[in-house]
Amino acid sequence: MINKSRYKSENAFHVAIDCIIFGFDRGELKLLIIKRGFNPEKGKWSLMGGFLKKEETLDEGAARILHELTGLHDVFMEQLEVFSRLDRDPEARTISVAYVALINIADHRMELTDHFSANWVEVRAIPSLIFDHNEMVTHAIDRLRYRTSIQPVGFELLPAKFTMRQLQTLYEAILNQQLDKRNFTKKMLALNLLVRLDEKDRDSSRKGSYLYRFDQARYEQNLQRGLSFKI
Amino acid sequence: MINKSRYKSENAFHVAIDCIIFGFDRGELKLLIIKRGFNPEKGKWSLMGGFLKKEETLDEGAARILHELTGLHDVFMEQLEVFSRLDRDPEARTISVAYVALINIADHRMELTDHFSANWVEVRAIPSLIFDHNEMVTHAIDRLRYRTSIQPVGFELLPAKFTMRQLQTLYEAILNQQLDKRNFTKKMLALNLLVRLDEKDRDSSRKGSYLYRFDQARYEQNLQRGLSFKI
Repeated sequence: MINKSRYKSENAFHVAIDCIIFGFDRGELKLLIIKRGFNPEKGKWSLMGGFLKKEETLDEGAARILHELTGLHDVFMEQLEVFSRLDRDPEARTISVAYVALINIADHRMELTDHFSANWVEVRAIPSLIFDHNEMVTHAIDRLRYRTSIQPVGFELLPAKFTMRQLQTLYEAILNQQLDKRNFTKKMLALNLLVRLDEKDRDSSRKGSYLYRFDQARYEQNLQRGLSFKI
Repeated sequence: MINKSRYKSENAFHVAIDCIIFGFDRGELKLLIIKRGFNPEKGKWSLMGGFLKKEETLDEGAARILHELTGLHDVFMEQLEVFSRLDRDPEARTISVAYVALINIADHRMELTDHFSANWVEVRAIPSLIFDHNEMVTHAIDRLRYRTSIQPVGFELLPAKFTMRQLQTLYEAILNQQLDKRNFTKKMLALNLLVRLDEKDRDSSRKGSYLYRFDQARYEQNLQRGLSFKI
């Protein structure tokens, strides 16, 4: 006999999904937010959120919601954490699975048309968001900083070819602190994850700055081996 | 006007919580599992699982479920991931938030009495578990291995004082590979996270082996600074 009482409808929950999308543009780490177009909370700033549907997994739901609200597609998002405070949504008990992604803003500019009300705001000037969305963003930034401090991450935020200066600016934006140029360059090159190209960016100075690309294959190899603390 | 249609009851989900508890005992990494005492799936092996209730957060639900099924209390668990495959529970659509913890088996032996049907099994010989529980455990082990490879973790699995040999055995169990003794000791000491005590374990050899303790304060300081890849 199957004990159906395990599945009590009074213990069913609305499962929300909220998408935290970081981008990097002109030296600034940015967050994508939208103005809610419906009640409750109409007109307030929000992450891109919606409800999980019966016929989809969380990953599928996250991709659908992000696409519906911003036009973005093919963004690789990963789960951050589930937020479940009892009063997080004042209308009804919901839990929310937060997803996070880093994207290169320029790569996606065509998708993010004016048709959608999505806006990039600087991470250091995020407005008040609905529910617990500011808390979600804080967790996401904490994780990004933590990861950045133990291994090189964030290359998704840069164009395919970048200068050392751009990379340093990205790190400075993520860590929210100034870094020493010489030391930064030395540490980065020592990781053996950058390939210097026979090409220079001539916009930044007359002499020009070498362009680099990120060596994804070697990066993945290193991750498997344990990047920095190999026993 | 509040648009209540956001909260459609047909889009409500049963939210399960499953607890993955690792322990370390006599050189073996172990997993705590129980035999299900109720239908469906009665008599099959399972993680410690149950449903989230309306009046609790996920963290609270995880602590309650673990305690109800095993007697364990005060175990610090962290969220691993939410599993949401459509057919993961054949009885009803549920999503499950997996929690994971590392504990020192000896510290909790008194709580885990025979009253409960919880059993420690070796990680390398885990039986077939219900639903997607084997997949959950695989993810948890992958994360543990990954973390172990980039920074020292897993001290929760050892007693407060331990020998270098015990620490190496733990790492070998987690990574599932033999490690070179001299190299291991050198790397571990170089991290400056172990405090050598004026005390020896005389059980292992006549000469005895120095006991170490883990320097938690320094560990947390390092984590904040970025343990190994400080820019």
